[in-house]
Amino acid sequence: MRRREFEMTEQREIELFLEEASFGFLSAVRQDGRPSITPLNYVYADGAVYFHGSRIGDKMDAIRHNPHVAFAVAKEYAIIPSHFTDPVMACPASAYYKSVLVTGSIETVEDLGEKAAALEALMRKLQPEGGYDPIRPDDPRCIPRLKGVAVLKLVPKSITAKFKFGQNLADEKRSGVTAGLMARGLPLDRDTADLMERYRPHASKP
Amino acid sequence: MRRREFEMTEQREIELFLEEASFGFLSAVRQDGRPSITPLNYVYADGAVYFHGSRIGDKMDAIRHNPHVAFAVAKEYAIIPSHFTDPVMACPASAYYKSVLVTGSIETVEDLGEKAAALEALMRKLQPEGGYDPIRPDDPRCIPRLKGVAVLKLVPKSITAKFKFGQNLADEKRSGVTAGLMARGLPLDRDTADLMERYRPHASKP
Repeated sequence: MRRREFEMTEQREIELFLEEASFGFLSAVRQDGRPSITPLNYVYADGAVYFHGSRIGDKMDAIRHNPHVAFAVAKEYAIIPSHFTDPVMACPASAYYKSVLVTGSIETVEDLGEKAAALEALMRKLQPEGGYDPIRPDDPRCIPRLKGVAVLKLVPKSITAKFKFGQNLADEKRSGVTAGLMARGLPLDRDTADLMERYRPHASKP
Repeated sequence: MRRREFEMTEQREIELFLEEASFGFLSAVRQDGRPSITPLNYVYADGAVYFHGSRIGDKMDAIRHNPHVAFAVAKEYAIIPSHFTDPVMACPASAYYKSVLVTGSIETVEDLGEKAAALEALMRKLQPEGGYDPIRPDDPRCIPRLKGVAVLKLVPKSITAKFKFGQNLADEKRSGVTAGLMARGLPLDRDTADLMERYRPHASKP
């Protein structure tokens, strides 16, 4: 059940997260009716999600058969132990995270210009420091490689997101979680506490 | 294409990774023939993968319709920039990671004893410090909660893994990547260099 209090509807927040994360999981339906799932680096550019990979294999077979796919990206910020808010019961144990789900049709990009642009966007995302010659469809060094690699384009039909940061908590429990995070001090704990405050329902905005 | 040089076949290595990672992505096929994908905490216990969640929703609808699922877990260790090994071309850019893929049939666990054991295993994994009363099927505080939560059990038909750490590299390129990682010094870079050595084909074992 998708609980509405964790839904993230701010388009910019979703895009920033898609720009920050480096990989996600692409799910498709194989010809035998079973699901496939593949972790892939990606770039979200010009309103589409682009992937690259081999021209052959299970993933390519699946999407040729059925282009409807689902792509998910998630980042876990914190495991919230039950003892942050309850001395006895295990039930309050939880995890706080961001996740984005993109559904739509996927297609293989054949145009060398669009392939080059997608791979350039992927490079700019994953190697922002540069250090390589631009990928150009008219560069003879690039053409055989561009032809040899598969570039996939997922045109989103829907993009939904769940950012779960204790939006359902009463004030007393919220304080317990925040205090627990600050005392624990794992690398993402302070960020998590900040996001709990940021996404708090009816929080007074500065 | 699943390149065989990155295949991990050591059962213990795969299990250790499944024990280390806290969440993965469960993929199923919905009644309309489209794939679903959901990030979920999990525990690998007694040869099965267990999940918990709401008794209603898209995921539950999908698996009631078709119990064949795929579950994937991945950890990205390093983005390998092209300039570690090539001053000009973008092509050598890569990512090193571990990923495990579990396929099989999923079922809902109804027996309160097995539900309690699965939730206990999940708690021991995600909250190893304890701080909660054991989850017992004969504890009147637990019974309504055990009945209210869905526990899912994925019985693996296959478990495959890909640990990609430059196994395909010639010695000169490998040295370039290792030197680049050590100079860059991101949190996982040293671990990545160690794993490159550990999984190196024909590496002389100590």
